[in-house]
Formats: sequence, structure tokens, C-alpha cells
Amino acid sequence: MATQRSDARRNYQRILAVAEAEVAAHGAEASQEQIARTAGVGSATVRRHFPTRRALLEAVFQERIEGLCAHAERLGAAEDGRTALLEWLRALVSYAVSARGFADTLSYEPPVEEPSPDSCGARIEAAGSPLLQRAVREGAVAPYVTFHDLLTLAVGIALATEHHKDPEARAGRLFHLAVEGLSPSKRS
Amino acid sequence: MATQRSDARRNYQRILAVAEAEVAAHGAEASQEQIARTAGVGSATVRRHFPTRRALLEAVFQERIEGLCAHAERLGAAEDGRTALLEWLRALVSYAVSARGFADTLSYEPPVEEPSPDSCGARIEAAGSPLLQRAVREGAVAPYVTFHDLLTLAVGIALATEHHKDPEARAGRLFHLAVEGLSPSKRS
Repeated sequence: MATQRSDARRNYQRILAVAEAEVAAHGAEASQEQIARTAGVGSATVRRHFPTRRALLEAVFQERIEGLCAHAERLGAAEDGRTALLEWLRALVSYAVSARGFADTLSYEPPVEEPSPDSCGARIEAAGSPLLQRAVREGAVAPYVTFHDLLTLAVGIALATEHHKDPEARAGRLFHLAVEGLSPSKRS
Repeated sequence: MATQRSDARRNYQRILAVAEAEVAAHGAEASQEQIARTAGVGSATVRRHFPTRRALLEAVFQERIEGLCAHAERLGAAEDGRTALLEWLRALVSYAVSARGFADTLSYEPPVEEPSPDSCGARIEAAGSPLLQRAVREGAVAPYVTFHDLLTLAVGIALATEHHKDPEARAGRLFHLAVEGLSPSKRS
């Protein structure tokens, strides 16, 4: 019985790892048959662990979202609020760029307008909001900036650079531009 | 003969006007059959004027792109380079937000990497570049900013806000944030 459970657990972990790679490469449309083949299991096994495509995608994103949440928590102890917020946002943008389908999922999910505590957006917001609040308190970010703005910015950078030759580099440029501002009022 | 030509011209203009509305409402996937029905012509007439979906989309975007180009030219005479650039970019973002499919088209078309003189991106770049160059000369925009950055920014804002309740308002917020900067270095 214990062996059966640990077999199932190993299968689950292998399928999830393959699914992560497939979703990163092909986005939300990744083939479940291809995932089964690469993981060396039958399609029925994939479906037993992940009955729907949505269940599969949520599991794929969940691992990374937990990573982003843990990262945000660690950064809570950073010395400088601005550095902490920007490091975390850079990680969020980088993940959205590398994981096709993730930005798409977030773009349908404006957390402020349609809150749902378990959604990707809501969990990211709960983790990242303290970083934004601290940066605002320290005067590094204007008080009118909402967490929703940050999320939409990250999504936009990922979606706009998706079809470019070097999405990671283009996204980095665009993130830098958005942080520094195209033309801040005080400069004029 | 002259009447035939002017009939054809009227048909073309009517189909184009309907196509603009349909593409604005449904994006690049707008139905050609629906366009024919609304314009009160047969599908064959639509196909005669626009043999492919791409030809239809290019004609739809062309009218607005010419508008954006003319707008850029008028702004060349503005007193202040920063104001001129930002007004034009706001118009570009606003068009990308209102015309579904346009931002998608531009996102596949990084003008710097794959130049093609007739493409939407290349024509917009030719019209808008002088505004960027002037803003850089006047010190309102950092010299490292490229026109491609501006285009990618506009595309990103449009794609990220597409599924929101009030895309125009959300896009305006995001544009403002990108212009002022999330957290310019000098503020820290």
C-alpha cells in the first residue's frame, strides 16, 4: 500500500515536471498526449492525476507561484524596500516570460475587480502586496500605484515580447523602461 | 463604366467601414460572412475586394495607420517635444486598445529585427521616430530608448488590458505609470 502510494507520488511528480516543460514550450495549449509520452506513462494516468486541462495548468503554475510567494517572504527582510520590490517584480516578469500561458491566465484575472482567494492572481497579490506597501511607505513608489498595476505591467511585458527573438532580453529592457519611466514629469 | 467604377468604390468603402467595426469588436478573427451580411453585399463581393483575411486586416489597419501618421506629422510642429511624443503615444495606445487584432499584429512584427517597409510596424516607426528623436534631443527621454521600445510598450499595454472591464481606463493608468516610472532611480 505504501509502495503504491509512493509509486503514484513519483508518477505525479514526473508528470508535473514534464508538464512544466511542455507548458513552458507550448503554452496553455500543450498536448496532454505528448506529456504522457514524454513522462513514459499512459494518457489515462495523466488524466487520473489531472482530470482537466485547467487542473494541469493550475498544478504547473502552483509550484512556481509558491516559489514566487516564498521569494516575496524572504525579501520582506531586505534592507531596502525599493530593491526588494524590484527584485521580486523582475522574478515575476521573468517567470511570466518563460512560462507561456501564465501571463494569459493572469490577463483574464484582474484580482481587484473579481477577487477569488485561490486564484493565481490573488495568491500572488497576497504575497507581493507587502513589498509594494513598504516601497510606497519608503517613498520609492508613488502612493497611487496599486498591486493590480504591477501585475498588469508584468503581464503586458510578457505578452508584448512573447513573439520576439529574445523575449527575456526584450522583457528586461521594457521592465527597466517602466521602472525608470519613459519621461518622468520632473525631468521635463 | 464610370458608374460601375463608382459603384465598386462605394461597395469597397461600405465593406471597409463594416470591417473596421467588426474587427474592432471581434479582433483578427472577425467573420467575413458577417461583414458581407452587415454591408448588404454577397460574400463573393467581399472576397473580390479582399481576397484574404490578411488583405482585409491590412486595409482596416491602413486607414487608422494613415491617421496616426498624419497625427505624428502635425505634432512635428508642436512647441514641446515631450508633449508631442506623449500625445502621439497616447493615440497609439488608445488605438491599439480599441482595435482588437492590431496589437496582436504588431506583437508579431518587431520592426527593428525584421524590417519590411510596408508593414504596419515599419510605417508607424517612420512616422513616430522623429517625435522620439526630438524628445531625446530635448532631454525629455533617455537616449537609450528606441522606437521599438515604445511600440512594444504600446502593444503590451493593449494586450494586458484587453480582458479588463474598462480597457481604455486601465490602459490610461498603465501608460501614465510607464511614463512617470514605477520607481525612477533618482527618487530613491
